[in-house]
Amino acid sequence: MKGKLLYEGKAKKVYTVEGNDAQLILSYKNDATAFNGQKKANFEGKGKYNNLIAAKVFEFLHAKGVATHFERSLNDTEQLVQKTNIVPLEVIVRNIAAGSITRRIGIAEKTVFDPPLVELCYKKDEFGDPVINDQHALILTDITEKELQQMKETALTINGYLKEFFLSVNLTLADFKLEFGRNANGEIVLADEISPDTCRLWDTETGEKMDKDVFREDLGDLLDVYDKILKRLEAAK
Amino acid sequence: MKGKLLYEGKAKKVYTVEGNDAQLILSYKNDATAFNGQKKANFEGKGKYNNLIAAKVFEFLHAKGVATHFERSLNDTEQLVQKTNIVPLEVIVRNIAAGSITRRIGIAEKTVFDPPLVELCYKKDEFGDPVINDQHALILTDITEKELQQMKETALTINGYLKEFFLSVNLTLADFKLEFGRNANGEIVLADEISPDTCRLWDTETGEKMDKDVFREDLGDLLDVYDKILKRLEAAK
Ligand SMILES: Nc1ncnc2c1ncn2[C@@H]1O[C@H](COP(=O)(O)OP(=O)(O)O)[C@@H](O)[C@H]1O
Ligand SMILES: Nc1ncnc2c1ncn2[C@@H]1O[C@H](COP(=O)(O)OP(=O)(O)O)[C@@H](O)[C@H]1O
Ligand SMILES: [Mg+2]
Ligand SMILES: [Mg+2]
Repeated sequence: MKGKLLYEGKAKKVYTVEGNDAQLILSYKNDATAFNGQKKANFEGKGKYNNLIAAKVFEFLHAKGVATHFERSLNDTEQLVQKTNIVPLEVIVRNIAAGSITRRIGIAEKTVFDPPLVELCYKKDEFGDPVINDQHALILTDITEKELQQMKETALTINGYLKEFFLSVNLTLADFKLEFGRNANGEIVLADEISPDTCRLWDTETGEKMDKDVFREDLGDLLDVYDKILKRLEAAK
Repeated sequence: MKGKLLYEGKAKKVYTVEGNDAQLILSYKNDATAFNGQKKANFEGKGKYNNLIAAKVFEFLHAKGVATHFERSLNDTEQLVQKTNIVPLEVIVRNIAAGSITRRIGIAEKTVFDPPLVELCYKKDEFGDPVINDQHALILTDITEKELQQMKETALTINGYLKEFFLSVNLTLADFKLEFGRNANGEIVLADEISPDTCRLWDTETGEKMDKDVFREDLGDLLDVYDKILKRLEAAK
């Protein structure tokens, strides 16, 4: 069923599906990268955690009525998704200041954004995924102004759902990154992954960081933390 | 009449006006800086050109009905302006791609923006004046959403006037940077300078660069070029 390797990214390999041009298989790797690829490591088993956690998140969002690329989990490290043309934007939603925004414009860590802050970055490794504005996004991609506004609104809707989802397992969602793609029907749907690699998740009681910052900031055992998240989600259902 | 030195920037000194709390004197320096202050030089006479050219631009914009800080030229290097609380934003309008935008997001030099592209940067030397979006601007400054939209619209209106102004002396306006400030009446007015230090101006016939890029890119004698612009403007009236 798995066809040829189409593309290898920093976190996933993308395969075709034999006999089905409208689908792809995402295969989660064990690699961790940070700071635009400058910091790298390999964690045996990480791919499994991201795959299984992302599957749970996408199933939850699907149940809420969000249009996503997700079809189903295939095994521990692979999932079947709709093939899309990825819009080369990262849509970032921030509830609480952390990471790049504190360094880039000096907003104090833990500042609460109310309403949540939506940022667009141009997804382009060679430029370091620079922050852009709406007009840049329309110049750099093929989406319409209406589609851009819908993407931003959907990102805020998803934020509301994800805050609830993670809070139910005692995790505070500080921020996260989304990617969208255009599927075979021409619709823009939520694509890529939502995992502790792409979210900032803090234990709601202790404030402990439970996401890729553990790797970025050398705070402890990344797999331990991802295992805890998966176990909490499995216990919750 | 000139009071005490209030502030020294990269291009101008700012003085109080004795007996008048609502005004300031801007004194143009001979310094040229580029790339966020990394490249520096001093050009005897540059302050005069920027002061006299900026005065002509502000007089023209005033005649068009644009609300500005400009009161009058005092001498070769100084001008009297309304005192404002500067909004810490750089409002950049781009008609044709050049400079930072080509390096930051890879848009090809000379790409025409239609409609013109409006960018906001957070005016903060220690962060390198980063590009921001509207939501960042509202978080980082005390302006309202309505004032922000007005600033951006005013910037586009000014672009229309300046294109006409410079074209009348055979200069194509590729891009420029504006700053706005809140005056004693609480109104947001155009402030700071508009000069060949803050605009990209290309000879309409030859394409020759006639602005601070001559310094940035070591293309020739900066004072010669600024002198040509002033002479063209003086001949035009
Ligand atoms: N449904 C989809 N259709 C097509 N491409 C996708 C889909 N979901 C994710 N992708 C893309 O798969 C690629 C591999 O993912 P990843 O390893 O995270 O890449 P990156 O190094 O760009 O972060 C990325 O370019 C991502 O945008
Ligand atoms: N009308 C005004 N009221 C108050 N400050 C002003 C006014 N016009 C310009 N300024 C400020 O004067 C300062 C000096 O100018 P400049 O040397 O260009 O500074 P910079 O190094 O920040 O570019 C700047 O902070 C600028 O914003
Ligand atoms: Mg990725
Ligand atoms: Mg300045």
